[in-house]
Amino acid sequence: MEPGKELPSESIVEQALAELEAGRYEEMHRLMQEMHPAEIAHLLEGLPPSLRTDAWEQVPIELEGETIAFLHDEARNSILERMESEEIVAAAESMEAEDLAEVIEVLPEDISDSIMQSLDDDHRKRLEEVQSFEEDTAGRLMSTDVISVREQVSLSAVLRWLRWHAALPQHTDALMVIGDNREYRGKLDMSDLVTGDPESLVRDVMHTDSEVLTTDMPVTDVAKLFERRDLLSVAVIDEQGCLLGRITIDDVVDVIREEADRVVMNSAGLDQEEDLFAPVLPSAKRRGLWLGINLITVFLAAWVIGQFEEVLDKIVALAVLMPVVASMGGIAGSQTLTLTIRGLALDQIHHSNIRWLASKELFVGLLNGMVWALVVSLVAYLWFRDEGIAFIIGLAMALNLIAAGISGVMIPMLLDKMGIDPALSAAVILTTVTDIIGFLSFLGLASVFLL
Amino acid sequence: MEPGKELPSESIVEQALAELEAGRYEEMHRLMQEMHPAEIAHLLEGLPPSLRTDAWEQVPIELEGETIAFLHDEARNSILERMESEEIVAAAESMEAEDLAEVIEVLPEDISDSIMQSLDDDHRKRLEEVQSFEEDTAGRLMSTDVISVREQVSLSAVLRWLRWHAALPQHTDALMVIGDNREYRGKLDMSDLVTGDPESLVRDVMHTDSEVLTTDMPVTDVAKLFERRDLLSVAVIDEQGCLLGRITIDDVVDVIREEADRVVMNSAGLDQEEDLFAPVLPSAKRRGLWLGINLITVFLAAWVIGQFEEVLDKIVALAVLMPVVASMGGIAGSQTLTLTIRGLALDQIHHSNIRWLASKELFVGLLNGMVWALVVSLVAYLWFRDEGIAFIIGLAMALNLIAAGISGVMIPMLLDKMGIDPALSAAVILTTVTDIIGFLSFLGLASVFLL
Repeated sequence: MEPGKELPSESIVEQALAELEAGRYEEMHRLMQEMHPAEIAHLLEGLPPSLRTDAWEQVPIELEGETIAFLHDEARNSILERMESEEIVAAAESMEAEDLAEVIEVLPEDISDSIMQSLDDDHRKRLEEVQSFEEDTAGRLMSTDVISVREQVSLSAVLRWLRWHAALPQHTDALMVIGDNREYRGKLDMSDLVTGDPESLVRDVMHTDSEVLTTDMPVTDVAKLFERRDLLSVAVIDEQGCLLGRITIDDVVDVIREEADRVVMNSAGLDQEEDLFAPVLPSAKRRGLWLGINLITVFLAAWVIGQFEEVLDKIVALAVLMPVVASMGGIAGSQTLTLTIRGLALDQIHHSNIRWLASKELFVGLLNGMVWALVVSLVAYLWFRDEGIAFIIGLAMALNLIAAGISGVMIPMLLDKMGIDPALSAAVILTTVTDIIGFLSFLGLASVFLL
Repeated sequence: MEPGKELPSESIVEQALAELEAGRYEEMHRLMQEMHPAEIAHLLEGLPPSLRTDAWEQVPIELEGETIAFLHDEARNSILERMESEEIVAAAESMEAEDLAEVIEVLPEDISDSIMQSLDDDHRKRLEEVQSFEEDTAGRLMSTDVISVREQVSLSAVLRWLRWHAALPQHTDALMVIGDNREYRGKLDMSDLVTGDPESLVRDVMHTDSEVLTTDMPVTDVAKLFERRDLLSVAVIDEQGCLLGRITIDDVVDVIREEADRVVMNSAGLDQEEDLFAPVLPSAKRRGLWLGINLITVFLAAWVIGQFEEVLDKIVALAVLMPVVASMGGIAGSQTLTLTIRGLALDQIHHSNIRWLASKELFVGLLNGMVWALVVSLVAYLWFRDEGIAFIIGLAMALNLIAAGISGVMIPMLLDKMGIDPALSAAVILTTVTDIIGFLSFLGLASVFLL
């Protein structure tokens, strides 16, 4: 083993980056030839626009197609924009149909037409097949590159046939067993194939109880199945039960990562495909929308405060303390919200436990409400030496923390029922609720008791 | 294929739940025997405490150990607390050393001692070996259940030997090739084994350039390597280059999921092991700490407001509008923060692009600051008919959005440099900064220009 090969792949990316920074493009090109297309994509995504263009020019031509497949939407578009149409068409030919289907959607029509024309018949047919499935379904994720065998042949015949076949598709942990009309019968694990008696028939060794997927299954459900059952590959069948292809764990890993990414990005109102190194103008525009939505909610809160101008005018301490109540509600609510959204994503929340959960969160809010109400009251008293304000801020705090707990459970539940993804919008709604209840309870109580 | 087998595993969990709710425990027990331990764990985690105890009693005794291994810390502890020590000791015997090492740490000493005594020598030795590696390293993740072959034998000899060996460890996509002193030489892919010429030697067919891991590699780096290179299994070697075991993709999938979970949970100040169905008291206690930390920061902001009592006392509109400036800064900052934390996690941020990134975010802040300053100014003017207030809120907003952009890049960068995980603490610090700058700029400018 050469020492260089021992290093984890991180270092080759770092090396390539160093060469790029030093302007040693040839060295970089040489390194890229040893890199996995996913690593080249990763390297490109970590570069500002100008360097990204320089780096792209060093990508070995035979890796261009695969590298494009591994890029996130935004970074991918920034590169496609800079490519000549002939270069795109050439790269398309080396891309797998599943990846090409994604890329072709964002290309101008004239380029996608040229790609369609340049593809050979098989490749084009396969592309159209992929395009016929909806996005984010098993049909889109599956590969048709699968080895299938008949159940009535012997293991030694299978082994002979495989030896003749010479190359297996990547990640072949099992062969699919089919009947005369391609109907799926079961799975022949490679380990059973090599350890089994060569004279036994596929039928006797195959697993008939292994999982199968249909083309319309959402990829998130596919990922859950793989995760829970520790699977490496699963057959995909059509409505008639015929084998269409298979999904392998490496594609599922990407789904899991993207799904996790989406949750985090959406919670900040960002698109998961957002490119850290996108130019200023598109970045500002995209994020501006989210700021606009929040501006409306915060003006709503300001309007609530505006209803209490009289009491604010008389007791300036209220203006000083009012953010405390609103902010603590937001924090407590977002904790419950995060747990609830996770519970929904993991299918852990159902009608049988939702009542238990809501009342639990109510009590957690009550308990923390009481504790922190006391602390806040005390601090407020020591600061302003006013029993009325101390009493009111404590009461408002307790009310807001209870409201926050219940909202944290109910808002994502309701959104989920309405078919809206809570990861994107629940946080804004929650903060609006806790802000409004925070200001309303604190200033409202003050109007009643202190005016 | 029976029709029942076709259903994705989700439904068996739902079925079991329905039986539990209907009190048909025997039916539930029967279903559990068909379930994967990960699915049983998932089912248990979705249950409130009382039902969870009932359900646990129905878990088939032979699956108890594996089910415990799949549970998250908190749910696991809630079940361990209710088990008799003999039951725990019995379950421990069926657990793999990697899982047992995790469980044993949370058990009372007398139980863990009994477990150690009850284990057979091999199992105990293996457990001590696992315990010698640090948590969250490749050493802890690896399995020693690996088939190794010598390089000078022929493929047909390997096949013969495998046939005699009869059962391969789960997820064996490759055999590891070792030298005379167990030193790692390379990897023999199962597909090359079955498709290669039986007379050729392992040496000629094996891959010598495949990745290897050392025991001290952090599991997050292991996960990145698997993801980028689409790997199924990788050998783990010791300092002398000798083969110790292997890590397989199914364990890596768990790492990826847990890592994603940690980021989401930490951003709300929650522990990733937090159990949605934990009882009220421990839940309230744990979340209370986070509320306490936030209380300090929000009182800091209140103190800043307190410095401007004079101007607030004179112009009550300032009290009404001040949350707008602070809140918009928080939103804009958290967008940049989320992108930066993701960039750090993906190793996309390094010294060469940090300046580019900070200035990009500054300009994004400037651009959005100008746009939303205008909008806010206009709304404020229409509301209060005061040019001074309209001008000041616009200026304060622009300043805060610029500060938010820069803080969103710099705070996680600094925390990362200091070795603190930004996922946990960056958001609190950021909101404190944007709150303080928001109040300070708005009320400060008002004091200067309007008093």
